Amino acid sequence: MKITILTLFPESFDGFLQGPVLRRAVRNGALAIEVVDIRNYADGSFRKLDDNTFGGGVGQVMRAKPVLSALAAVRQKDSVVCAMTPVGVPYTQKMARELSDLSHLILLCGHYEGIDERVYKAVDRRICLGDFVLTGGEIAACAVADSVIRLLPGVLKEAATRGESFENGLLEYPQYTQPADLDGDLVPPVLLSGDHEKIRKWRLEESLRATLRYRPDLLRDRPCTPKEQAILERIRKEKPGERQ
Amino acid sequence: MKITILTLFPESFDGFLQGPVLRRAVRNGALAIEVVDIRNYADGSFRKLDDNTFGGGVGQVMRAKPVLSALAAVRQKDSVVCAMTPVGVPYTQKMARELSDLSHLILLCGHYEGIDERVYKAVDRRICLGDFVLTGGEIAACAVADSVIRLLPGVLKEAATRGESFENGLLEYPQYTQPADLDGDLVPPVLLSGDHEKIRKWRLEESLRATLRYRPDLLRDRPCTPKEQAILERIRKEKPGERQ
Repeated sequence: MKITILTLFPESFDGFLQGPVLRRAVRNGALAIEVVDIRNYADGSFRKLDDNTFGGGVGQVMRAKPVLSALAAVRQKDSVVCAMTPVGVPYTQKMARELSDLSHLILLCGHYEGIDERVYKAVDRRICLGDFVLTGGEIAACAVADSVIRLLPGVLKEAATRGESFENGLLEYPQYTQPADLDGDLVPPVLLSGDHEKIRKWRLEESLRATLRYRPDLLRDRPCTPKEQAILERIRKEKPGERQ
Repeated sequence: MKITILTLFPESFDGFLQGPVLRRAVRNGALAIEVVDIRNYADGSFRKLDDNTFGGGVGQVMRAKPVLSALAAVRQKDSVVCAMTPVGVPYTQKMARELSDLSHLILLCGHYEGIDERVYKAVDRRICLGDFVLTGGEIAACAVADSVIRLLPGVLKEAATRGESFENGLLEYPQYTQPADLDGDLVPPVLLSGDHEKIRKWRLEESLRATLRYRPDLLRDRPCTPKEQAILERIRKEKPGERQ
């Protein structure tokens, strides 16, 4: 897969491009990635990239022409162009899986007050990272690229992307590692029992507990098995603080 | 305000720390920011930072001790520690506003399969960036820090953070800039009319249209005025494609 990032601030990807998982993906041949400076596609002697917004308002808007020229230059027949913008569909793990099947993903980063609306006629999808405002689309593009790259074949062990948060509609259960006794703070004994069936049950219960606590909305959208329902009812009856 | 980021991969913040808004905030004295390598707090000759997960499973878990030592070293009396993890409360603009009032925000980045659960006893909030999985908490920490920094006093013009997406419960209206005629693709005439009342109405209608299209969930959670309701009903009756 190839990922092309279009931005006015290519230097903001310096750290991202050094990431160990990304570099492994490039080394394996699973990924080619390029960061393209929209500035190179501004014509005229001024290379003016932004201007006041029509109709009045604070802040500058990115001009359409340089963005459209940059897009035209990098676009291939099978490219999918995703713009990072608060006015878009919220990004999910399902979308990450879809994007990871593409041969060429173009991520367009807005900045300032946004991009001239006419650019969106050349955009396939508008992606919103979440219900918060960033200074630009660069960090959102890192998040999308990162979530996609780790799903490419051969980048992580396949099992590592199974059973993690959101993949089965639940949050992940708590993880513990050495030492078993941390100055008196002990690992739950079941995890040291070697009884795989008990461990599986404990993990399911803790996944349900975490989801109920932090993301009850996920449980509303997900059909639960009768067994899961019974566990949830028991958890709901616990007094607060009875289990941390 | 001071922001401290705790991470195993300090180099992944190289680009972020160069951002123009962040640098302006530092120059203005509105922000002090530091990236602290958890590795410096690993004891023993091995400096072992991660280990297998108790109970079995793929992937490595970050050990508690180095993280707790790093936290103890940077924590002040008024610090608030937020861990970036999929098992947390979804991040919103409201939380960004809350965090921007703090004097010291510590952002803890997990990596690998996560952090030993016992660390969370020293954490005030668990923040989840969205319903997708990243290779680590670093990009999430950039997003949180960025969204907070732009709200600090004197960083952006105050008006620039009003009326933008999520601040009034709606997505932002489309923006246009020069040229008014882009090879035949014209700016909506109302924006060139100079009639501020008409422009205000057009922008409200376009905000509602964008929200209905991309984020109908926001409209369910937000009380609408009778005027907004009337506009929404009219938009709902439009045939698809009648307006783009």
